[in-house]
Amino acid sequence: MPAQRKMKLGAIIHGVGGNIAGWRHPDMQADASISLEFYKQQAQKAEEGKFDLVFIADGLYINEKSIPHFLNRFEPLTILSALAAVTSHIGLVGTVSTSYSEPFTIARQFASLDQISNGRAGWNIVTSPLEKTALNYSKTIEEHPGHAQRYQIASEYVEVVKGLWDSWEDDAFIRDKETGVFFDPSKMHQLNHQGEFFSVQGPLNISRSKQGHPVIFQAGSSEDGRNYAAKYAEAIFTAGPTLEAAQEFYQDVKDRAEALGRNPDEIAIMPGISPIIGETDEDAERKYQEIANLVSIEKALDYLGRYFEHHDFSQYPLDEAFPDVGDLGKNSFQSHTDRIKREAKEQNLTLRQVALSETTPRTPFIGTPEKVADLIQEWFEKKGADGFIFASAGPHSLDTFVDHVVPILQRRGIFRDDYEADTLRGHLGIPFPQNRYAKEMVNQK
Amino acid sequence: MPAQRKMKLGAIIHGVGGNIAGWRHPDMQADASISLEFYKQQAQKAEEGKFDLVFIADGLYINEKSIPHFLNRFEPLTILSALAAVTSHIGLVGTVSTSYSEPFTIARQFASLDQISNGRAGWNIVTSPLEKTALNYSKTIEEHPGHAQRYQIASEYVEVVKGLWDSWEDDAFIRDKETGVFFDPSKMHQLNHQGEFFSVQGPLNISRSKQGHPVIFQAGSSEDGRNYAAKYAEAIFTAGPTLEAAQEFYQDVKDRAEALGRNPDEIAIMPGISPIIGETDEDAERKYQEIANLVSIEKALDYLGRYFEHHDFSQYPLDEAFPDVGDLGKNSFQSHTDRIKREAKEQNLTLRQVALSETTPRTPFIGTPEKVADLIQEWFEKKGADGFIFASAGPHSLDTFVDHVVPILQRRGIFRDDYEADTLRGHLGIPFPQNRYAKEMVNQK
Repeated sequence: MPAQRKMKLGAIIHGVGGNIAGWRHPDMQADASISLEFYKQQAQKAEEGKFDLVFIADGLYINEKSIPHFLNRFEPLTILSALAAVTSHIGLVGTVSTSYSEPFTIARQFASLDQISNGRAGWNIVTSPLEKTALNYSKTIEEHPGHAQRYQIASEYVEVVKGLWDSWEDDAFIRDKETGVFFDPSKMHQLNHQGEFFSVQGPLNISRSKQGHPVIFQAGSSEDGRNYAAKYAEAIFTAGPTLEAAQEFYQDVKDRAEALGRNPDEIAIMPGISPIIGETDEDAERKYQEIANLVSIEKALDYLGRYFEHHDFSQYPLDEAFPDVGDLGKNSFQSHTDRIKREAKEQNLTLRQVALSETTPRTPFIGTPEKVADLIQEWFEKKGADGFIFASAGPHSLDTFVDHVVPILQRRGIFRDDYEADTLRGHLGIPFPQNRYAKEMVNQK
Repeated sequence: MPAQRKMKLGAIIHGVGGNIAGWRHPDMQADASISLEFYKQQAQKAEEGKFDLVFIADGLYINEKSIPHFLNRFEPLTILSALAAVTSHIGLVGTVSTSYSEPFTIARQFASLDQISNGRAGWNIVTSPLEKTALNYSKTIEEHPGHAQRYQIASEYVEVVKGLWDSWEDDAFIRDKETGVFFDPSKMHQLNHQGEFFSVQGPLNISRSKQGHPVIFQAGSSEDGRNYAAKYAEAIFTAGPTLEAAQEFYQDVKDRAEALGRNPDEIAIMPGISPIIGETDEDAERKYQEIANLVSIEKALDYLGRYFEHHDFSQYPLDEAFPDVGDLGKNSFQSHTDRIKREAKEQNLTLRQVALSETTPRTPFIGTPEKVADLIQEWFEKKGADGFIFASAGPHSLDTFVDHVVPILQRRGIFRDDYEADTLRGHLGIPFPQNRYAKEMVNQK
């Protein structure tokens, strides 16, 4: 019954954007990636559009070939905390890697964001795809762990973090001025975790917010990534190049979750989309061309190389078949590079074609507000998605989406007219996690 | 020439406060330590008072004997980022330990706070005094490093962080839409640090703010701590129990800095003070008694134990001489416990007297606004301090200080009438740090 399901919407805020030349657009603020004003305005616009959340992505390694936004941008936990102070309802989700951080620190910083925002925090777990990240973090880790091990670490890590989040039961703080009892020591818990990768005693020095735990997001799409998501994710930010691919992913992850005993309705699957909206279809196509043409072929090759461990593609002829690069990319962006190799082979693509379609992918979501709304509704109703993460495809594109597409979705009854909750968990319709120790007590009765 | 020196003022914001029973006061917000509204109101009041900065202290280990504020409070980088979005001039300084974090992460989070706040960030370096912190962080570190080694780590750590902050020269980002040149690769620098404790390649993925680097604060007062401060600190948050002690510390650290070739005027020494202000001296004394009497002797003993590795002082007779606890405390709060032991011996104090004076120290700054202003002026002019970090001694005490003491200091020409700068470095009068690579180029000419 589609009417029962509620569509979710997120907006990734990413400064000068994911397109390597997007900053060159005349209307784009060229220092947007380090402009509080820009982030604030985007978050407030998304909140005006009743979005569930804003999303801040991340990375821990750059070199001179990195895309402009990656070179010089805010760190997620700090910018999300700033946005918490200037918004009131919208969820605040950020990426933090489990390969290069400490569970105590991350549990605490997300819990702090969750208290600052009064229950609006979400943590997007990544395992850091770039091998060279280890060069910036060689105290904890000498070599970048392999793909499978990264997910083993991430599994133990999230268990530790969730354990630390339960350090204090929800009614632990009594604060009775008369008797002088500030808290109930029986409701403060040490985790005493001793595992393969971490040992962490606890308790955490901050309590749960009114949403219990920050919402767990995940974005992996490899085999390990899907299993991880099925086990731990409460929401998934995924790629969705086509409806068919999105449906395959959707069904597969929900099946895996169900096989693990989870309720598949309690995982929100949200493909990223970058709609290009025009007054007419031709106007939208013109906007797409305008953006695509900002990219030079040299920059496009550099960008492509990023997914293949910064491989130098300029050594190959542009208009011949996409070169054989062997296993390159396997231990960094595995599923992404596998797809590129497969499509290049199946469709006989040249290097130039691959490079240009990687830098400015031709999304299906190009057209009038009505057409984009139709597609969104179709993907949602045909179970390609529970919702979407909107990524700006050019200047003012979030404004256009909120002003012209959201009202259509609202009129059709697919998307909320106003917030019905004030926590991220509430927006997404994901259950409140009982404190593990409170549950034990109930069981003992 | 005292008229030339400018006094600095900071305000530590610490929720329900440093006094273990302060939260019991009828006018105190009992959940202040996790209330954004409280932090925001305090920061905005300090900004109304033209303070240089607000300060967020920290700790990484709690147990059931920790003071109420420590049990459940915001993490510094997140709450400071939130405050950045709702203030415009005041500096934002937070404590982060060099013993349990990664230089790449901390360089980045402070740089991000510095960009979010447009040049108002400061980092208070601590080495984590509590031995048990290691129990929460056993991935990176199996045992809590000893006092001397913690400072060796901290020295290398701050060099790495400052190096990462210089990853991008100030004019590295060109952002020329016409030519498509986003940045000048010759102005992006890898640090390539290889040291005893860390190896970090860089570059950092965020550029310098308009104040160059966040301001480096330090709070250690042991021998190692003073040497560290003399070498690295741009501002020092210190204890100042008496004018004489403050003068000794002031002169000693400035001498050490000068011996290292630094300009001693470029280190702001700021003792913490907790003035108790009344309409008359009797009214102020009444307020002091009101706060002191909120503490029970059991809680006072617990609190004292915290400095001595959570030693159980309830086993000793209350009204006999302070017990001999041997070396306890040596590897955690060394200088603080040395002072307690020394004073107890010199003044023949009982355990009860030590415990009560530790929980509610009788500050010299008790009295009318005029009297408190006189003392502040005296300490400042007699070189006990370049300024002060105000710590609330009860509800509304920051309001009272800003409304009644600051105007006196302004009338006397000791403190600014309005902000003359908009960066923390600007407020403190500490020089802008040249980018190390830009300097090299100048030298090559």
